[in-house]
Amino acid sequence: MRVIVQKYGGTSVADVECMLKVRERVLKALDKGYKVVVVLSAMSGETDRLLSLARTWSKRPDPSEMDVILSTGEQTSVALFSMLLKDCGVKARSFLGFQIPIQTDRSFGKARILDIEKDYIFDILKDYDVLAVAGFQGCDCEKRITTLGRGGSDTSAVALAAALDAEVCEIYTDVDGVYTTDPNICSQARKLKKIAYDEMLEMASMGAKVLQIRSVEFAKKYNVPVHVRSTFTQNPGTLVVQEDKSMEAAMVSGVAYDKDQARITLVDVVDAPGSAAAIFEPISRANIVVDMIVQNPSRESGRTDMTFTVPKGSSEDTLNILKKIKDKIGAREILHDSGVAKVSVIGVGMRNHSGVAAIAFSALKRENINIKIISTSEIKISCLIEEKYTELAVRTLHEAFGLADMQEGAVEDRAQCKVEDR
Amino acid sequence: MRVIVQKYGGTSVADVECMLKVRERVLKALDKGYKVVVVLSAMSGETDRLLSLARTWSKRPDPSEMDVILSTGEQTSVALFSMLLKDCGVKARSFLGFQIPIQTDRSFGKARILDIEKDYIFDILKDYDVLAVAGFQGCDCEKRITTLGRGGSDTSAVALAAALDAEVCEIYTDVDGVYTTDPNICSQARKLKKIAYDEMLEMASMGAKVLQIRSVEFAKKYNVPVHVRSTFTQNPGTLVVQEDKSMEAAMVSGVAYDKDQARITLVDVVDAPGSAAAIFEPISRANIVVDMIVQNPSRESGRTDMTFTVPKGSSEDTLNILKKIKDKIGAREILHDSGVAKVSVIGVGMRNHSGVAAIAFSALKRENINIKIISTSEIKISCLIEEKYTELAVRTLHEAFGLADMQEGAVEDRAQCKVEDR
Repeated sequence: MRVIVQKYGGTSVADVECMLKVRERVLKALDKGYKVVVVLSAMSGETDRLLSLARTWSKRPDPSEMDVILSTGEQTSVALFSMLLKDCGVKARSFLGFQIPIQTDRSFGKARILDIEKDYIFDILKDYDVLAVAGFQGCDCEKRITTLGRGGSDTSAVALAAALDAEVCEIYTDVDGVYTTDPNICSQARKLKKIAYDEMLEMASMGAKVLQIRSVEFAKKYNVPVHVRSTFTQNPGTLVVQEDKSMEAAMVSGVAYDKDQARITLVDVVDAPGSAAAIFEPISRANIVVDMIVQNPSRESGRTDMTFTVPKGSSEDTLNILKKIKDKIGAREILHDSGVAKVSVIGVGMRNHSGVAAIAFSALKRENINIKIISTSEIKISCLIEEKYTELAVRTLHEAFGLADMQEGAVEDRAQCKVEDR
Repeated sequence: MRVIVQKYGGTSVADVECMLKVRERVLKALDKGYKVVVVLSAMSGETDRLLSLARTWSKRPDPSEMDVILSTGEQTSVALFSMLLKDCGVKARSFLGFQIPIQTDRSFGKARILDIEKDYIFDILKDYDVLAVAGFQGCDCEKRITTLGRGGSDTSAVALAAALDAEVCEIYTDVDGVYTTDPNICSQARKLKKIAYDEMLEMASMGAKVLQIRSVEFAKKYNVPVHVRSTFTQNPGTLVVQEDKSMEAAMVSGVAYDKDQARITLVDVVDAPGSAAAIFEPISRANIVVDMIVQNPSRESGRTDMTFTVPKGSSEDTLNILKKIKDKIGAREILHDSGVAKVSVIGVGMRNHSGVAAIAFSALKRENINIKIISTSEIKISCLIEEKYTELAVRTLHEAFGLADMQEGAVEDRAQCKVEDR
């Protein structure tokens, strides 16, 4: 049994016309002999409508009941789509999270998939050619409905593809793939034919617009080829796959940015074991996500500066927490700056190339862009800069690494052929 | 464990203000030491919205997928209501058809309840004080969602009350009880304190506005006391219970009417074995519901007239069917009349009183209302009359049987006390 998984986002199922286009794609896959597992999101706008409905009822809606309400969005999508398929004679049915079941933990609103009853799906696939599976939802061990968080349908699709050993997991969305950078900022941005799971993960802020990050972790873990492409064109999009030699040939595959950064510096903190914990534990307890952290080398005084970034919206809460512990950690002063942004260059090829950081820094220097913090991972270099330079920095780095005109290798072309075959 | 079941219809949960009133009622029941199983309908208008959504997608929506969509209405209601309860500290949760499960057959859109897993409900009731159960829905043996037909939440409530051996099943609605007749037609109409299951069943057309007929059959079968009352007042409504002596004391308990009747007469049909079957089998196959049937005594010619009624909307289809079989059954002529209505007097007391029919016929005669067909059951007498006389006939019969000022017996008063106690 040859199975493929296709996931369609909210804009792809927004109304009956959109769904008819989706049906055409599904019919094509059927023609090629596939059994098709179609994962659908709620119609665009529906999840927001349900959220605001719940907030009319309760200022802080109970998360478990919120999930019961939110799951109706996908429930409606899959039933409507199944009707369309049956109307043209396809053996199809809707499939809800609890029916499969897609077993999750009990973290309502951000549940994690624990298990998918694949034997039952294969059993159902004997009688049906298309299963329209509600994305974004699962159920816990007591059959209570859970949801997987925003963008969770991507994870549903990848998890199903992993469970069913599908040939590919196609993610249809309103963008046509993953770009070397944001085309709205940089007209030179180029669609990538392939990107490694790890690169996609590091693209975080940029990539998240395309794929829920958790789905990429899932795809990496189970080695599921993910094909991100547009619902509205026939062009191949971007394959998210395991790293291969062709990828390593390029130093950098993309430039990402994140304007949602605020910098906070604690001046002259006592540099003793436990001082970092004393700072970050209370911040973490308040559910504030800290991104970059830099600690200067300790000075002779036995004191140091601790600098880190948080989302702009969390900046005030963070400052309030720090004011309370200021004396305990012996900080002389708390500085903060909300006018900052992070730019990053990403690429698995970085590992084999020296001088990537040097190229990035010189490029920014040429444009007189001052770097406030640097932070690196094995395949990423991030710089915190003044926010107003974000676009300039992105274009500069994109050009410095020749991303606009980079030739992708032979392996890529083969990959593309395979995709076009279907 | 003392359990009561309360069911609230669509107008009772239409918005957050309505639901807050429902919450007050539930809190009162909690104060009295009950565990409360609250069965909710979809918010008013929601089911129609979902129906018309589906019809945008498909001219003849697949019934199994239709149920997946329709069930979201109640799903949303119970989750929103649970939020309200939790917000004021009540141990509450929503409960969907498949979670209990409420096991039904596979007749999508008009499923019948087969079984309710009561042990699981009792188990859950150890941890929760209120269960908000989605009415109208269940699931079949493959966990596919089914719905019970319009008004199905009444049946859900009665079935749960039966399964849980609840003290009473309270049906809260926008009318405050069952009346001796339609108050819109007859200002003398009086609210009944009690009515027997059988009477309620015979009230069909009138009673159906208050309770789904199937729920009454269920209540009768399991002897569940059903209390129909208004969400918007504190007054007791009408108890639907087993027949008792006080009921038998009254000859008639109500006058019902049905304007949706068309009369069809086959003139000079051959009166031979099988001729009735030859007429009604093809009509039944076309899913047309025949109500009254009257066959005149056979004439010397060996021929007879066959008269029956169908809903006005089915009259044309019926005539087309009859035209095809006219020759086969040897009918000389087919007459039809859509300007008719049925008025009925109902009462379990009829069994013990002679002359009920005579009183009814004389009353109609006094007003010069011609009776076109008469049909009787053990506890009901129905007359087909010209439609324009419907209101007059109802008022005349209501007065003829003294329904406006009838004193109900001592047993009734006791019943009322019991209701007011809570």
